[in-house]
Amino acid sequence: MPAGHAAMTRLQEHLPTLTEVDGGVLILDQTRLPHEVVQRRLTTVEEVAQAIREMQVRGAPLIGATAAYGVALGLAEDSSDARLAQVVELLAATRPTAVNLHWALARMTAVVQKSALARRREIAWREARAIAAEDVAANAAIGRHGLPLLVASQTRRQAARAAAVNDANDDGRFSPTAIQIMTHCNAGRLATVAHGTALAPIYAAHAAGIAVHVWVSETRPRNQGLLTAWELAEAGVPHTLIADNAAGLLLMRGRVDLVIVGADRIAANGDTANKVGTYLKALAARAHGVPFYVAAPCATLDYACATGANIPIEERAAAELGAGGAGATAVANPAFDITPAALIDGFISERGVATAEGLNQWRT
Amino acid sequence: MPAGHAAMTRLQEHLPTLTEVDGGVLILDQTRLPHEVVQRRLTTVEEVAQAIREMQVRGAPLIGATAAYGVALGLAEDSSDARLAQVVELLAATRPTAVNLHWALARMTAVVQKSALARRREIAWREARAIAAEDVAANAAIGRHGLPLLVASQTRRQAARAAAVNDANDDGRFSPTAIQIMTHCNAGRLATVAHGTALAPIYAAHAAGIAVHVWVSETRPRNQGLLTAWELAEAGVPHTLIADNAAGLLLMRGRVDLVIVGADRIAANGDTANKVGTYLKALAARAHGVPFYVAAPCATLDYACATGANIPIEERAAAELGAGGAGATAVANPAFDITPAALIDGFISERGVATAEGLNQWRT
Repeated sequence: MPAGHAAMTRLQEHLPTLTEVDGGVLILDQTRLPHEVVQRRLTTVEEVAQAIREMQVRGAPLIGATAAYGVALGLAEDSSDARLAQVVELLAATRPTAVNLHWALARMTAVVQKSALARRREIAWREARAIAAEDVAANAAIGRHGLPLLVASQTRRQAARAAAVNDANDDGRFSPTAIQIMTHCNAGRLATVAHGTALAPIYAAHAAGIAVHVWVSETRPRNQGLLTAWELAEAGVPHTLIADNAAGLLLMRGRVDLVIVGADRIAANGDTANKVGTYLKALAARAHGVPFYVAAPCATLDYACATGANIPIEERAAAELGAGGAGATAVANPAFDITPAALIDGFISERGVATAEGLNQWRT
Repeated sequence: MPAGHAAMTRLQEHLPTLTEVDGGVLILDQTRLPHEVVQRRLTTVEEVAQAIREMQVRGAPLIGATAAYGVALGLAEDSSDARLAQVVELLAATRPTAVNLHWALARMTAVVQKSALARRREIAWREARAIAAEDVAANAAIGRHGLPLLVASQTRRQAARAAAVNDANDDGRFSPTAIQIMTHCNAGRLATVAHGTALAPIYAAHAAGIAVHVWVSETRPRNQGLLTAWELAEAGVPHTLIADNAAGLLLMRGRVDLVIVGADRIAANGDTANKVGTYLKALAARAHGVPFYVAAPCATLDYACATGANIPIEERAAAELGAGGAGATAVANPAFDITPAALIDGFISERGVATAEGLNQWRT
């Protein structure tokens, strides 16, 4: 077992999302969670492509790292430029919106292409391992950079509550002392190699003994909110599951101190593609003066995309909406939406916190 | 069979939501739709209360009419003031938010109380029948008053599309000539005795040969959007089912000409309680300059409620969110939210169209 692998898993107490094993990778099948914990061993690039396409592996950073290992697996028999191109094409076609996938494939291509044919396989494995390890480090840094934002949001609480609807429905069920955080989809450890992006500052707060409570949206149609609930429960972080539709009422009632989400692609101007429904939360947060943050590694930044209008939005199968798509009923199922930069109060990456105007400073 | 019943059913081509039958009422069990079409005969006030509580009968106007029949059924053996109070108390406790329930119970109480004991049973049946027939007439009028608003929204289309994100994702799947309407939950014939509220203008357009296309939100957690899809399919109205989360992206892309929803209670200032998620759609409609209308009979107006903050919001069972509520995961499940009057471009009732400032003209 390579040294990089051992270092990676030491950082996690629980079953990892991605590990090297016997010339392949071991993944946690996220289509089976939270009902069953199933690990799958992937040994070919075709298996990796299928796992990404079917969302057994999901979350922009984790897709990137898994695809990198997919390249390494794809070069097992033949590491020619032609084979490399074929492997990259197969993986690139799996999911259109998350840019981390394309970022990882471009990085793997560049490194492999400049290597001697005899060393390509070894170099591909080493680079995939580096991408995975860098994701772990980046997310830990996101946790450190985001933590002060969580704490600051709590001090704004009293003003926010005073401005909120004075309703007779307040049941006092939620701790008035905990920081109240809303998220969307799963941008936790399950969406990454470790620590998560949006959840990284939350885990950092929890580890520091700061009381937090997380509002978890179901995230239809794929219900990735259940993954967030599962991993928060695993980590002992208090949280409450809600229907996506309930986000507006909670913000109106002053029950949320800040909203923090991940990202699948951030355009150069800060417009952000993330799981469909993110935009509605951003609108509601702004309507109630609640800060809205995007947490993502710099690999999610796509400086080649000028604005959100240039980001392709994946349309997924009608079947994801269940029996509703029968007979005379058509189905539209966009998997992502665009949150305009103007609604985003800050971006948290491994390099710090920036506004949309400041994103250019992270261009390498 | 009473004459009122025959008049009522002639207005509908399909299985009615509520009809008198053999000293009871026949309802369509809406917890079984769209998978199964099941009718239930209710013969006691207890059965009526249970049907409302379990949402076999749902939709503010239909709840009101069904509860009125519940009062009549409850007086079968004993029509004293004490029994009347007991029956009304049982029915009033079923659902807290929809005001039509309380409106119908107050009307039944007033009429029954001033009648001689010997005639109370007959008078209660007659009043329930009147309430049901008035709902049918009110909704037909809402259809007539709302139709010009739909047509007008189409003329604003070109400007709205030009202002929308210019994206490469437009698949041209939806007719550019049809009026594009977004709704939420089910405010169709299934939510009323006939015709619906929000869907009444849509049915009026369809009947007039005007092309319409309806974006139907799933409406988690109870999926009443599937009821809307079912009844639109039944009526031959083109429609597309979406996840609630997709509403923002569709509005951003200029795919929606207007949003029209029903209401469970409208406060004196125009703040409107409707199915949870309505507020998010109203925010997104406003962000993109798309008109947002509330369609409801005057029975939904509660002049005793000054603002939305005074409206009680029903909290329903965690089980509605499915397996998510297991173990360490808490669940919050508010069934309604409040859309502030400032986000509502107009109210459509049987008496015409008004802004929030004009609602007072409908006070009787």
